[in-house]
Amino acid sequence: MSRKIITIGEIMMRLSTPGNERFFQANSFNSVFGGAEANVAVSLAQWDVDAYHMTVFPDHDLGKAALRYLKQVGVKTDWVFFGPGRLGLYFLENGAMQRPSKIIYDRLDSAFSQFEGKNLEWDRIFEGVDCFHWSGITPALSQKAAEMLLEALKSAKRNGVLVTGDINYRRNLWQYGKSPLEIMPELIRHTHVIVAGLTDFENCMDIRASDYEEACLQAKKDFPLIKYITTTERNSISASHNQLEGWLWTGKELLRSKNYDMTDIVDRIGGGDAYMAGLIYGLLHLTDQDAVEFATAASVLKHSIPGDANLVSKDEVMALMKGENVGRLLR
Amino acid sequence: MSRKIITIGEIMMRLSTPGNERFFQANSFNSVFGGAEANVAVSLAQWDVDAYHMTVFPDHDLGKAALRYLKQVGVKTDWVFFGPGRLGLYFLENGAMQRPSKIIYDRLDSAFSQFEGKNLEWDRIFEGVDCFHWSGITPALSQKAAEMLLEALKSAKRNGVLVTGDINYRRNLWQYGKSPLEIMPELIRHTHVIVAGLTDFENCMDIRASDYEEACLQAKKDFPLIKYITTTERNSISASHNQLEGWLWTGKELLRSKNYDMTDIVDRIGGGDAYMAGLIYGLLHLTDQDAVEFATAASVLKHSIPGDANLVSKDEVMALMKGENVGRLLR
Amino acid sequence: MSRKIITIGEIMMRLSTPGNERFFQANSFNSVFGGAEANVAVSLAQWDVDAYHMTVFPDHDLGKAALRYLKQVGVKTDWVFFGPGRLGLYFLENGAMQRPSKIIYDRLDSAFSQFEGKNLEWDRIFEGVDCFHWSGITPALSQKAAEMLLEALKSAKRNGVLVTGDINYRRNLWQYGKSPLEIMPELIRHTHVIVAGLTDFENCMDIRASDYEEACLQAKKDFPLIKYITTTERNSISASHNQLEGWLWTGKELLRSKNYDMTDIVDRIGGGDAYMAGLIYGLLHLTDQDAVEFATAASVLKHSIPGDANLVSKDEVMALMKGENVGRLLR
Amino acid sequence: MSRKIITIGEIMMRLSTPGNERFFQANSFNSVFGGAEANVAVSLAQWDVDAYHMTVFPDHDLGKAALRYLKQVGVKTDWVFFGPGRLGLYFLENGAMQRPSKIIYDRLDSAFSQFEGKNLEWDRIFEGVDCFHWSGITPALSQKAAEMLLEALKSAKRNGVLVTGDINYRRNLWQYGKSPLEIMPELIRHTHVIVAGLTDFENCMDIRASDYEEACLQAKKDFPLIKYITTTERNSISASHNQLEGWLWTGKELLRSKNYDMTDIVDRIGGGDAYMAGLIYGLLHLTDQDAVEFATAASVLKHSIPGDANLVSKDEVMALMKGENVGRLLR
Amino acid sequence: MSRKIITIGEIMMRLSTPGNERFFQANSFNSVFGGAEANVAVSLAQWDVDAYHMTVFPDHDLGKAALRYLKQVGVKTDWVFFGPGRLGLYFLENGAMQRPSKIIYDRLDSAFSQFEGKNLEWDRIFEGVDCFHWSGITPALSQKAAEMLLEALKSAKRNGVLVTGDINYRRNLWQYGKSPLEIMPELIRHTHVIVAGLTDFENCMDIRASDYEEACLQAKKDFPLIKYITTTERNSISASHNQLEGWLWTGKELLRSKNYDMTDIVDRIGGGDAYMAGLIYGLLHLTDQDAVEFATAASVLKHSIPGDANLVSKDEVMALMKGENVGRLLR
Amino acid sequence: MSRKIITIGEIMMRLSTPGNERFFQANSFNSVFGGAEANVAVSLAQWDVDAYHMTVFPDHDLGKAALRYLKQVGVKTDWVFFGPGRLGLYFLENGAMQRPSKIIYDRLDSAFSQFEGKNLEWDRIFEGVDCFHWSGITPALSQKAAEMLLEALKSAKRNGVLVTGDINYRRNLWQYGKSPLEIMPELIRHTHVIVAGLTDFENCMDIRASDYEEACLQAKKDFPLIKYITTTERNSISASHNQLEGWLWTGKELLRSKNYDMTDIVDRIGGGDAYMAGLIYGLLHLTDQDAVEFATAASVLKHSIPGDANLVSKDEVMALMKGENVGRLLR
Repeated sequence: MSRKIITIGEIMMRLSTPGNERFFQANSFNSVFGGAEANVAVSLAQWDVDAYHMTVFPDHDLGKAALRYLKQVGVKTDWVFFGPGRLGLYFLENGAMQRPSKIIYDRLDSAFSQFEGKNLEWDRIFEGVDCFHWSGITPALSQKAAEMLLEALKSAKRNGVLVTGDINYRRNLWQYGKSPLEIMPELIRHTHVIVAGLTDFENCMDIRASDYEEACLQAKKDFPLIKYITTTERNSISASHNQLEGWLWTGKELLRSKNYDMTDIVDRIGGGDAYMAGLIYGLLHLTDQDAVEFATAASVLKHSIPGDANLVSKDEVMALMKGENVGRLLR
Repeated sequence: MSRKIITIGEIMMRLSTPGNERFFQANSFNSVFGGAEANVAVSLAQWDVDAYHMTVFPDHDLGKAALRYLKQVGVKTDWVFFGPGRLGLYFLENGAMQRPSKIIYDRLDSAFSQFEGKNLEWDRIFEGVDCFHWSGITPALSQKAAEMLLEALKSAKRNGVLVTGDINYRRNLWQYGKSPLEIMPELIRHTHVIVAGLTDFENCMDIRASDYEEACLQAKKDFPLIKYITTTERNSISASHNQLEGWLWTGKELLRSKNYDMTDIVDRIGGGDAYMAGLIYGLLHLTDQDAVEFATAASVLKHSIPGDANLVSKDEVMALMKGENVGRLLR
Repeated sequence: MSRKIITIGEIMMRLSTPGNERFFQANSFNSVFGGAEANVAVSLAQWDVDAYHMTVFPDHDLGKAALRYLKQVGVKTDWVFFGPGRLGLYFLENGAMQRPSKIIYDRLDSAFSQFEGKNLEWDRIFEGVDCFHWSGITPALSQKAAEMLLEALKSAKRNGVLVTGDINYRRNLWQYGKSPLEIMPELIRHTHVIVAGLTDFENCMDIRASDYEEACLQAKKDFPLIKYITTTERNSISASHNQLEGWLWTGKELLRSKNYDMTDIVDRIGGGDAYMAGLIYGLLHLTDQDAVEFATAASVLKHSIPGDANLVSKDEVMALMKGENVGRLLR
Repeated sequence: MSRKIITIGEIMMRLSTPGNERFFQANSFNSVFGGAEANVAVSLAQWDVDAYHMTVFPDHDLGKAALRYLKQVGVKTDWVFFGPGRLGLYFLENGAMQRPSKIIYDRLDSAFSQFEGKNLEWDRIFEGVDCFHWSGITPALSQKAAEMLLEALKSAKRNGVLVTGDINYRRNLWQYGKSPLEIMPELIRHTHVIVAGLTDFENCMDIRASDYEEACLQAKKDFPLIKYITTTERNSISASHNQLEGWLWTGKELLRSKNYDMTDIVDRIGGGDAYMAGLIYGLLHLTDQDAVEFATAASVLKHSIPGDANLVSKDEVMALMKGENVGRLLR
Repeated sequence: MSRKIITIGEIMMRLSTPGNERFFQANSFNSVFGGAEANVAVSLAQWDVDAYHMTVFPDHDLGKAALRYLKQVGVKTDWVFFGPGRLGLYFLENGAMQRPSKIIYDRLDSAFSQFEGKNLEWDRIFEGVDCFHWSGITPALSQKAAEMLLEALKSAKRNGVLVTGDINYRRNLWQYGKSPLEIMPELIRHTHVIVAGLTDFENCMDIRASDYEEACLQAKKDFPLIKYITTTERNSISASHNQLEGWLWTGKELLRSKNYDMTDIVDRIGGGDAYMAGLIYGLLHLTDQDAVEFATAASVLKHSIPGDANLVSKDEVMALMKGENVGRLLR
Repeated sequence: MSRKIITIGEIMMRLSTPGNERFFQANSFNSVFGGAEANVAVSLAQWDVDAYHMTVFPDHDLGKAALRYLKQVGVKTDWVFFGPGRLGLYFLENGAMQRPSKIIYDRLDSAFSQFEGKNLEWDRIFEGVDCFHWSGITPALSQKAAEMLLEALKSAKRNGVLVTGDINYRRNLWQYGKSPLEIMPELIRHTHVIVAGLTDFENCMDIRASDYEEACLQAKKDFPLIKYITTTERNSISASHNQLEGWLWTGKELLRSKNYDMTDIVDRIGGGDAYMAGLIYGLLHLTDQDAVEFATAASVLKHSIPGDANLVSKDEVMALMKGENVGRLLR
């Protein structure tokens, strides 16, 4: 039977300049929809998982277009709501060579961040759910969003759901008057698997460490529910040439995936979300080592797909894990 | 010597679906910049007029791209400022046949509407200016914008500048707690030439009339500075087939332009702004009858130009006024 | 409660030349999915109807893309199957002015036409269904398809479902050795509402008449289950200028809709399917006269939408029925 | 057996702005090849005629691309030469509505106009040729081109070839020091069929007349070889709406074709060349009245085809002559 | 004098997703024509060789478009026929990075595979021909195609033509009831030069060997007519990074070309066909070592050209052979 | 206070094939404006420098479009003139992999090269100017251009302006009857900073040397005004993979910048001009070593920008100099 997974978070319209044009060269923008948590759901929906996403859209044609996108890629939309507020946007200028990519966020006052989620029947939402995924972007958006997320986490606990959280600290968010350290620790306390790098540890968990394993050990002490901690090591040689490796701390040891050389990257947005989806899939279906391999291979493939989401099949991820068909022509 | 004209107002990025695609069919959006008052300045800049536009952009690459647009089309940007806030946006779905066009505005909290314009040296800005143009959109955006506009109008008066105002009542704006009737009358009191239809008269000047000339007479009574009142009569047969006629009330009589049959309309956004620009040009350079003819011909040509602004030369408008070269092939 | 409707039929990928290019000028083709019956389901899915479509796709990425399309536009895909055979295609060259449009069909050996539908549990499929729609294309494709359709119709009868059928005679199909008159009459005998023009009456029902009402009376005699007969009268002035009127024979009288002048047509493919969907919606929710008005207005709007399907809302159709907002700009 | 026809003339690359963009809005240009006389050859090559075109290209990749174009559309290229000089260009801004189209020619110093054609074996070129077509553009380009054309016309006479000439007076050409009246009369003296309007009569044949038939009678007197004179009457209502009628003076009477209402014109460039090709085809294969009908129908269809050339089949022209399939959908 | 070469085989329309889009992301497909053997003819036609291609198209506008393509690129089309059946198609999803490219073939029942070639006057076709090229795809399509090919080979022998064959074993073809080993050996017996890798040897010639030279020696024994055996060694590092080397077994020794590092590959389809064309050219005009160098350089350049065919000049191949101008800017 | 810089030179429209298409595959061309010296002005205008460009355009819409381009990118256009002659063009085919890029120039008889610049008030133009930049292309175009440039250089001297010159020897130019050695030395004698490689030394300064420093020393002897000599060392591995290093000879020593590995180059045209602009900026604001680092980093970034000009900010160049943000994602 398929696993049932739910994610929660804001979905934005991404407007990116065509080709390698700069913002002030562009006369048109390509549009796709994306959001850190929804990207995870979309990935999982490609892999025979029942993936639900909870979010809120403004009640106009672009909000409805976002809903149609979720349906098209196979995400269940039972918990998509419409409410007052804007559709969050972000503008993307694709980097090239040594020139970095640039994002201009325009997500203030989004329908999701303004949503009155108080009366949601979370226990009904979590019925039969195997895994719940959240990210540190949601509590950074607004007080309301942070509170809604905490309600969800409590219900997840009540319902025995595995909880994964991508700490994902972003300095530019957190503008509603709270600091991450006031909000994040309680959320993390309800979470079994976290994605965190050293910056995340410091800003959201108040853990300073010079070494990743040391940080993990401290996290385990401070947040006893945590079972796994994971991250990706990315080496940016140029905008289109990166190297990527997944790390998974299992409480006992730090497992590392193969290191991938990624040249001619098509679209790096969502690479972390693809990794997260791969890890969730792996933790539910594979050994720990295979989980981190699956997650990293999934993330690598994401870099070859235009758009935010990782539209690849399970078989394609598996083949890359095994080193099969790499870059070939399948007739 | 060239006339010097200044306009004031918000500039938005317009994101329109390609061809006749609906919002939820689009995978890209064409982008141009536009705003009711800036469109007037752009028109005039094509006609050997020194056209300045005062506005405020956010200090990021898209704000700078908007500035570059103004420069490209020949508008003087001495009074363009950068400040906190968003870049206003609007999404456009082009109608076709009987299907109407749709606009989704996303202009809340724009840099222009949040601008602290209190300390602007308006008397320096109006030095040597022949004509100042404003529209009813600015006071509808925010208290700050309304106040800044009033300051500007007072300075215009002190400097003996001809003032034109496009009443342009839009129900969806005016969300900051004031009603048009609390704000608009004082602004109109500083204005010599207004664009107004019967709805504008009612909502912004508290004048109810069943007949256009009757409304004009009443307006002249209530707002003695007014010298000209003008409007366009548009008959929408389909999204691409309209008929257009300009009306100019001179205090004595209601002049009417030729009536144009516009088939295969390319882009009707900005048609009214092109008319306004034509009228300003006409009032400064031509007889009253020729002014309304020039304005209407300019507006017709705008409908053939993609984008918000009327990128046509004075000679092209003149030729259409005279019925020359209509739809021909100029080798 | 929403009405539940099911349609059955082949879905093809349509590959059309860009703009007005001829087949031998094209270096790319725009692709959408469509099929006479699926187009009906898609229309209805926009109008708060539970619309299901039964079809068969080949089990490859393009078949899956077709499935995603149905999901995106809100059609329920519980009864979409995968099986051996091709994805049907058709190539479209858009006409212009006096030059006709051209279609090259390439649908031989499609997965749908080769589907072994014998063991389908039709009674389960028709559970709770209000209306079942089929077209004369299905029985024209293959013996198997004709037989499957007859099974479906028998089950529909058992389940008390309203049946609508678009006779849709196409000379180029019917290549598997049977003539329409051997197959169609039995299918029509299970049908309450038919779309038919004089050619359809002659070729599929063996009814020759010089007058539409006369044909209807004869049809009612020969096929007593028939309650409504409908058609559209289209006058083709040019590829982009047609006039359209809907006719609905109610058993008592021939109702006619408003006659629409359609200039600057965007895409006429699927105009008939949009009419059919409108009629189904109308017969289930409106008076007979309003049904034919709704159907015709829906069809007119379809002509403004790129692609096969009528992606318009109920409110938009209603507005056109009432003559509101025609070709205007909705801010 | 197929008729053999040869045309002579310069071929340019046409660079046109996309959609309805103005020259200063364009960031790309669509490119096709075209030239008044080559367009005639291309038309004829679609109709089972052996069509040769004699011209000269610069010996670089764009010159070779032009050659490939001729081959692709079925023109015989035995008499295409490569030589020093530029590839002629012209830039096209598509008009819309009342706004005229604009052409910027950039054809100075083309390889064709600089060609040393003295030693061409014209008698070999004209072997077995049924019809030779030239236009007034060639002698307007350069002294060399005018002289080469006269050589060709003398050889055509020697070989008993039917000669057609499109007078096509263009004020902007003729910059090499000769006036049309010094050059054209001798060329026309070798010609049996001419396309000429009143301006052409005046500037190239020194015939002033207020009435077309009167002009024709005078032309017949002055140029006794002339058997047919023809022209099209075009009424430009807008850039996309014209009316067209063909006239053919047979020496005895002035035959007129049906008058066509052309709305939603796709591309009017080459409409006259398509008419000429149709007339040549008609004079070789049809009655006089059918010839002018065929020519006009061909020209109408050209207006629906993007590019300079009339890529339609004989059957398509015939169908329009008979009023069949007009603007329909051919499945 | 130019060499005369003839190839035979099916030509398909290739429909590829734009950029790096996946099949289910695409809303349009780029179209080109291609086929293994025709690609060889097209390559050769760029190099002052008289290249003919024999094939069959369906008699509709897309079939005619394919014919126009051959003419455009300079292939002689005297032996192109029109007949019943489909236009073969294939859909291509371009890979990127580690993600492989995917092809969906849709070539069943093509006009070529159904062609009744029995009465072709092969001796007339082979008159004056220097080289005849076939591939293992043709006999894999249908019994008719295999038989026609054998007739051709017999005639080639009678006419003393050099025969080259690309074994090109594809498991997915061969669906008409025969196995390769029933058909291929007799065809190979008529062939002087074959392209074969170890898989081809095994499946089509029943030769199993662990080493390439060993396989060649055995092939020479079993098929005494064979003079040369050739193959390319391709190392796929990623979809856009391959390494390529040509091997030519001359009966005496195995010659190897330079090994090329190919980064940023534009289009790898047709790389093998470009190699084959290069080898044919080389064997007719160069030393053996230069032949394999020319072939490999040609193949490398193909990878930089969008589409199936190698549109490069002889000089460009020669320059790469000599290491000149590599990746520079030629002004 | 901003530095004031003036450049002089021809601006062409560049028409480049889309993607990696060859000239004879292209059906459209992307258009931008560029010219060696104007590219320098554009670069500098992005960096808070008052950059003026002196040039001449034809007085038609494309000439005006070129003027608008300069305004858009912030170049001051006070010294742009309109005059008779063509708009220079160049066609660009983008190379890929080992295949070189190709340029076809079409700049003969441009308005700039025909400009009668005799009466220009150079002393007014150079008022307050800090730096004047010219290139060896201008004197290569025409006698008039060479003479105008000499006038300018004399005035620059009178006004104490720093003069920089890009020797830029191009064999294909220099077609008006003078050789470089007749013209260039006098121009170089007025110049303080030159860009020159060994070929330039030989052809324009009559200096033959096997070693760069040796050439510099000799140049200093022959042209005593010279203070700096500079060049870039480019290693072309493929069309999209180059290595770049800047060299600056200060009279005392040869400074070298970091060596950059440039993979996935977007557009290499204008790389040298970007370097020159960087060097001018550096010499005016930075130390010698930082100047060559800034110049090289600027040039590297140019390779990531589509079009001729280096549209990057000072901060972006500085960041690359410091190795910050290389190829990352800036949120």
